[in-house]
Amino acid sequence: MKPGIIEDAEAEPVATTLRARRIGLSAAGSDLIAVMRHDCPVCRSEGLASRAQVALRAGGREIVVSLLHSSAETPAPGEIGLSESAWQRLGVSDGDPVEIAHAQPLASLAEVRRRIYGNRLSDGAFSAIITDIAERRYSDVHLSAFVTACSAVPLDTDETISLTRAMVDVGERLQWPGTVIVDKHGVGGLPGNRTTPIIVSIMAAEGLIMPKTSSRAITSPAGTADTMEVLAPVDLDVSAIRKVVEREGGCIAWGGAVNLSPADDVIIGVERVLDIDAVGQMVASVLSKKIAAGATHLVIDIPVGPTAKVRGADAADTLERALSSVAQAFGLRTRVMRGPGAEPIGRGIGPALEAQDILAVLQGQPGAEDLAHRACELAGGLLELADAAPAREGYARARACLESGRAWAKFQRICEAQGGMRAPPVARFQQDMIAPYSGRLVSIDNRKLATVAKLAGAPMAKAAGVALQCRLNQMVDAGAPLCSIHAESPGELDYAAAYAVSDGPIFGIEAL
Amino acid sequence: MKPGIIEDAEAEPVATTLRARRIGLSAAGSDLIAVMRHDCPVCRSEGLASRAQVALRAGGREIVVSLLHSSAETPAPGEIGLSESAWQRLGVSDGDPVEIAHAQPLASLAEVRRRIYGNRLSDGAFSAIITDIAERRYSDVHLSAFVTACSAVPLDTDETISLTRAMVDVGERLQWPGTVIVDKHGVGGLPGNRTTPIIVSIMAAEGLIMPKTSSRAITSPAGTADTMEVLAPVDLDVSAIRKVVEREGGCIAWGGAVNLSPADDVIIGVERVLDIDAVGQMVASVLSKKIAAGATHLVIDIPVGPTAKVRGADAADTLERALSSVAQAFGLRTRVMRGPGAEPIGRGIGPALEAQDILAVLQGQPGAEDLAHRACELAGGLLELADAAPAREGYARARACLESGRAWAKFQRICEAQGGMRAPPVARFQQDMIAPYSGRLVSIDNRKLATVAKLAGAPMAKAAGVALQCRLNQMVDAGAPLCSIHAESPGELDYAAAYAVSDGPIFGIEAL
Repeated sequence: MKPGIIEDAEAEPVATTLRARRIGLSAAGSDLIAVMRHDCPVCRSEGLASRAQVALRAGGREIVVSLLHSSAETPAPGEIGLSESAWQRLGVSDGDPVEIAHAQPLASLAEVRRRIYGNRLSDGAFSAIITDIAERRYSDVHLSAFVTACSAVPLDTDETISLTRAMVDVGERLQWPGTVIVDKHGVGGLPGNRTTPIIVSIMAAEGLIMPKTSSRAITSPAGTADTMEVLAPVDLDVSAIRKVVEREGGCIAWGGAVNLSPADDVIIGVERVLDIDAVGQMVASVLSKKIAAGATHLVIDIPVGPTAKVRGADAADTLERALSSVAQAFGLRTRVMRGPGAEPIGRGIGPALEAQDILAVLQGQPGAEDLAHRACELAGGLLELADAAPAREGYARARACLESGRAWAKFQRICEAQGGMRAPPVARFQQDMIAPYSGRLVSIDNRKLATVAKLAGAPMAKAAGVALQCRLNQMVDAGAPLCSIHAESPGELDYAAAYAVSDGPIFGIEAL
Repeated sequence: MKPGIIEDAEAEPVATTLRARRIGLSAAGSDLIAVMRHDCPVCRSEGLASRAQVALRAGGREIVVSLLHSSAETPAPGEIGLSESAWQRLGVSDGDPVEIAHAQPLASLAEVRRRIYGNRLSDGAFSAIITDIAERRYSDVHLSAFVTACSAVPLDTDETISLTRAMVDVGERLQWPGTVIVDKHGVGGLPGNRTTPIIVSIMAAEGLIMPKTSSRAITSPAGTADTMEVLAPVDLDVSAIRKVVEREGGCIAWGGAVNLSPADDVIIGVERVLDIDAVGQMVASVLSKKIAAGATHLVIDIPVGPTAKVRGADAADTLERALSSVAQAFGLRTRVMRGPGAEPIGRGIGPALEAQDILAVLQGQPGAEDLAHRACELAGGLLELADAAPAREGYARARACLESGRAWAKFQRICEAQGGMRAPPVARFQQDMIAPYSGRLVSIDNRKLATVAKLAGAPMAKAAGVALQCRLNQMVDAGAPLCSIHAESPGELDYAAAYAVSDGPIFGIEAL
């Protein structure tokens, strides 16, 4: 089969090169956008008006963008207007030539369709899909379909291993001198519970290597990277991380800035919009980043509670089995530590408020004893797993390190090494939620509390969130504040407060 | 639980009303877009910068739009720039007040999440989801997740009935005088096969009522509405349809213009991007439109072939069972008629090329005898189902109507009633695909042929598509044209031709 000949002799060759124009467009959602004049000759001759997505190439880079058509003056015919993200990813300057082309049909979408129709996927299929996702060739519709298909018919162990491997392969991989590199992961779902910065400080103070990279929030009001950013810069590249770890033995950096699992960052964006987090993807997401970061010994914190992410022992078993079998396939030593999940750990929910809890624990101030306790449990488990403490002595070793002030000193040095310590911001707009009657506090809806913090603006608005003023089983008086909502704008405060009092109480109070 | 008080006395009330500004933005993809200045006080005080989607209200209407932020001069602070679609749906004029608000968390998304996690949904859940979809409150990510979840774990019969009912309930419903209203649906998947305009002409000429509303293409190079639009206007509202049907007994209109199943139109957009079409959604989509259109007797054409949409007898059985049981639940009499699906029916693939086949059949000209035959089979089956012909005499009755020229006369009158008949356009750019060696044509890859037609620009580019110059089992000579690709731009012609010769042949030739 050979191509024939163009029968229409009038078919003139068409220039498909446009001039780049920065148009200062950005979005919290899909942000790779290009704008063309509807009457641009290239647009018309290439039949681009009917295409939702097109490929752009400049200086050896290629991206796929959503295409908008405009009748405004800018961009002019012959120009291609680029959103801020598209501008940065193409690396162009105003007037630079940008080639425009029909986006190639992606072969990997056939694999996504196969998965939608219930078929299992091979190593090669995941590799093709993840490569295209990392290159940002998938639209929101395709990404959402992939994520949903792998949730509706859950990934099996082989698929999870394939997905994990594919995610590691498309990113950078860190190497460290030494055979023991410790790491920690929290499954999340429990508001607050920001143990990581404390654990890193303890481990590094104890002489272990803990190059910690953390994610930003997926579906929660804050990820460790969001919270840590309030206290020190976290956007460290690989060489910056290496310097911090060489000097201090540990760091608390944002994983996204080191490109450890670029596909995961894209997938996480979709999971955040859908507010889902299925087991297989969760395991691949966690372990791909740990493997890429060079970890050899990993403690995993799984809070279990009726409104936590993991609701009961069965769900915890399923997750633990999946994590363990996939970790084993990659030679990563893991220890799963379940913990209480009935109420938040610490008082703050949201980046700045959680940062204040961390400072209190490290400085030995009162108010977040539950957070100090859990951090020492996990640090102790990790010391034991790495053979840095005898069995059953890990907790005491960690606690001593914290109480001696050595962890606090180490934390300050890590912050300085990451670019300088800073003070958490305080929200300008606050509103208390008060107890409607007296009684004993018998339940807290963690999911709803997290949603209130998110509606208040967390994690994007750093000072936003919820500050708890009560603990489970405590007696409360009518009119006493149970928590306060913090926001950076009155609109968000109203939005969060309206939700907080709708649709069932957050705090269950048993009248006496 | 009561809301507390705003503790920060400085919190000033903020105007959330902006002035509408038409900015002439459009897109082939998600097209409800609003643009705000990044430094607009409303944007900052309301915390909208971090929101991918916001709600806009004007004159009692509310839409949810994707929000972009701009540093360009237009829109100015205090203005909200609206894409063409957003402009039309809000029905505003320049300078009109538009209220902006945080998009409310959609309660129905909890049901979508439940479905993603494998739970069956109730009548009420589908109703809530479909209402939100029809109101265009779902983002692409949410739509894709809903569609995918209902494909990965297929809808069961109860769910399909619930979905069908929900889709009927959110749209308009047509009523007709008389107890027999006939209709026809083709499952599609076979390129060409454009029998509907012929069947409507025969049925109306035989004195039956056939108010046919058709869809545009979902995943194919043309839907009946796309093809018919080449010959006459199809964007008829309800009163226009009623006038045409009262005068001529039949019409061939686009269903989307009468808002029969507004949710389906949104869902179809996503299915087109994903290139999927699962049984449950297909059944709900088809039957909801037929029920809403007031049909009582329905013939369904299912072509079966190795590269058609329905690949074999098992798949056809599954689809027939689903269609029959759901139709029965709504009191709709149906007859499923399977047909050959190994090669396209008719020579043309794409709106204008298919229209030429229809004209050939109606005018009794040679070249599309297979199309005439299939149209008469289906029209005959429908005459029998509606008791307008004795059993086994339907085909002969339909054939006689066609050969007498009465169907052609009726078709012309219908076109006139719909707004005037017109001639199909001819593509300016054409390229032949030739046989690489001599032999017998033993197979045609219908799916690949359809993809070539789509890459050439069909259905958006009306003249684009593929014109077949061979039939299965025919002898072909080396160098003879097998088909020609038609396009309206050289870029699309190249795009389609490059795909046509890549990745395995479309035409299987057995050398002798």
